[in-house]
Amino acid sequence: MISTNEGDQIVKFLHTADWHIGRRLHGFDLTEEQQNAFQQIEQIALDEQVDGIVIAGDLYDRGAPAETAVAQLNGMLEQLNLKDHFPIYAISGNHDSATRLATGSPWFKDTQFYLNTKIAQAFEPVELPDTQLFLLPYFEPFEVQQYFDDDSIQHLDQAIVPIVAKMKTHFDPAKKHVLVAHFFAAGSATTDSETRLTVGGLGAIPTGSLTDFDYVALGHLHGRDALTTDAVPARYSGSPVKFSMSEANQQKGVWIVDTATEPVSWTFRPITPIRDVQQLTASFEDLLDPEQFQELNFDDFFGIVLTDTQPIPNVLAQLRERYPNIVTLGRQDGFQTQVAYQGESGQQMRQMNPMTLLADFYEQVAQEPLTKQQQQWASDALKQANEEEK
Amino acid sequence: MISTNEGDQIVKFLHTADWHIGRRLHGFDLTEEQQNAFQQIEQIALDEQVDGIVIAGDLYDRGAPAETAVAQLNGMLEQLNLKDHFPIYAISGNHDSATRLATGSPWFKDTQFYLNTKIAQAFEPVELPDTQLFLLPYFEPFEVQQYFDDDSIQHLDQAIVPIVAKMKTHFDPAKKHVLVAHFFAAGSATTDSETRLTVGGLGAIPTGSLTDFDYVALGHLHGRDALTTDAVPARYSGSPVKFSMSEANQQKGVWIVDTATEPVSWTFRPITPIRDVQQLTASFEDLLDPEQFQELNFDDFFGIVLTDTQPIPNVLAQLRERYPNIVTLGRQDGFQTQVAYQGESGQQMRQMNPMTLLADFYEQVAQEPLTKQQQQWASDALKQANEEEK
Repeated sequence: MISTNEGDQIVKFLHTADWHIGRRLHGFDLTEEQQNAFQQIEQIALDEQVDGIVIAGDLYDRGAPAETAVAQLNGMLEQLNLKDHFPIYAISGNHDSATRLATGSPWFKDTQFYLNTKIAQAFEPVELPDTQLFLLPYFEPFEVQQYFDDDSIQHLDQAIVPIVAKMKTHFDPAKKHVLVAHFFAAGSATTDSETRLTVGGLGAIPTGSLTDFDYVALGHLHGRDALTTDAVPARYSGSPVKFSMSEANQQKGVWIVDTATEPVSWTFRPITPIRDVQQLTASFEDLLDPEQFQELNFDDFFGIVLTDTQPIPNVLAQLRERYPNIVTLGRQDGFQTQVAYQGESGQQMRQMNPMTLLADFYEQVAQEPLTKQQQQWASDALKQANEEEK
Repeated sequence: MISTNEGDQIVKFLHTADWHIGRRLHGFDLTEEQQNAFQQIEQIALDEQVDGIVIAGDLYDRGAPAETAVAQLNGMLEQLNLKDHFPIYAISGNHDSATRLATGSPWFKDTQFYLNTKIAQAFEPVELPDTQLFLLPYFEPFEVQQYFDDDSIQHLDQAIVPIVAKMKTHFDPAKKHVLVAHFFAAGSATTDSETRLTVGGLGAIPTGSLTDFDYVALGHLHGRDALTTDAVPARYSGSPVKFSMSEANQQKGVWIVDTATEPVSWTFRPITPIRDVQQLTASFEDLLDPEQFQELNFDDFFGIVLTDTQPIPNVLAQLRERYPNIVTLGRQDGFQTQVAYQGESGQQMRQMNPMTLLADFYEQVAQEPLTKQQQQWASDALKQANEEEK
């Protein structure tokens, strides 16, 4: 399948991104889900006989991934490149440590595994017989400022201009031009599980700056529908696995991009999860009624929204007897509560004022605020408890 | 220089180990020292025209090294293997995360960079025309227990027996046999900067179990003289840089091993530090006397032992005007004090009883314990300070 230097046409590649290896779903381990999604990607690539696999950043979920995550991603890349002999065209994303991810990359090129982690590498395209692939890793404006030695570059929309201009000086007019990148494209729709994004002009790349490319394979946003404009041939592949409740309704999958057509065309190939992530809104009674919801896979990850308004003692434990993988639990018109353990949330919670915590909790459960009298009782009880502790 | 498969003789290799990239010396950055030592190793390899470089474990100082350490080691390995075209024969040590260090290793073999991190890999030797190289990574007894499915393997001295036996089934009698390993060989001398070692039978490899090899290139202990027996052809190269005061008197360097001689022979090539690590024992007055110690490189890392017995106010600040890189400061017959910042030590110190801390400090400085009266004064002052703080 490695055919780059043999003169035959490179027409079809698979576009994926945002694997986030090592990520957890509200405390739940996703290793098995991610491994299974990977195997489906591999199978799609084999079935479609693609000529290469594009991974548009965020291979890892964090800069210093756990050993288990390192072992998992190493195994995936080895499988695709060394065993299946697919060329790989990859970049680092904002979740990756560019430095750590670059480990071994100078050795990878011999087997057509291209992994760019520095801006400077983006201007030397991978030359395929009919296509030039520009692999632009995730970047911050200051890196572009330094690279071009231009203090006037302050924001992403400014940074992309000289980048594209420099790429164009390397354009071979006889070939198609594909950009692989990891950023927020203006006009995209976001979900909860991408890192907090500055939506708007300064923190986004205007899609208008991408019109010189025949296809832009994007990573960063987790939904394939994040960008649906027909004005530019750019798409997010989305993540292969659902990483938050806000992604519950997304169809995960990969794009198969055909560069031989005029213009370049792409079709979607879905990925089916082992355990889906879904929202379930119902009353407590219905949820535990054996006659109800029989069609569900109870091992799925559920975000449950209760329509009840009365307090229900021990609600989570009771629900978990039927739905072991409850990810969030909330009340209709109330806010969602994350129910699984999360280190930071726990810590944040411990730093909150106990009275605030109580008031929030009561309001969420009872759907009405504490009365003045209740507040007084609670405040007195707390005072007494504090004094006893001393 | 890559000549393994071309049939010519592979006769000479450079043996180094324990680079500990990312290590600090009592809080002082060693990046520059380590980079310089690396360049000397590279130059020795070029001068000697060695046919390969053995790195016997502990490439990193810790399992999850900092990004700067990752960038530094990646650059070194790229330089030796991809730019200078030296074959590399390396193993993971106890300081390395085998999993993290293995990143990229399946791609390395194409350029004769062999990096073993799992026991199973140790039994497939690198076949050179006249030598078999067995690369045995650092291991714990339980891994050997699992590998051989033998519960009776409880200790290192037991674990080494089936390992060597299995290697011998792969011996080509027409070739020399070299073992690269990372462990404590019985009879070796230790220094402070290796991780705490169990000296003695159970936690050590008996040198008698290594007699089947023509040379054993060891890592783990930081002094080249840690093992000096002539009974077995085994040597520690030692670390290229001094990593603790206990290594002050060691001559750092590498072995050049010649497998063409009968028996295999090895010669030492020294490495000269930019800033040496040395012990200095003198009186405070002499240390600051411009007429004294003029031959010293004052930028060296000094462990200073004062012969004075009287308290000296502000002693460290005064000494640092002449010796900016004081690593430890102590009194003759007193214990050494680490003077640079060290996270753990600082934390431990903060958890100590202030009276204990004071008593220790006074005794160290004044060479006599606090009197009952002094203890009472200190205790009263502390009590008052605590109350004021409240």
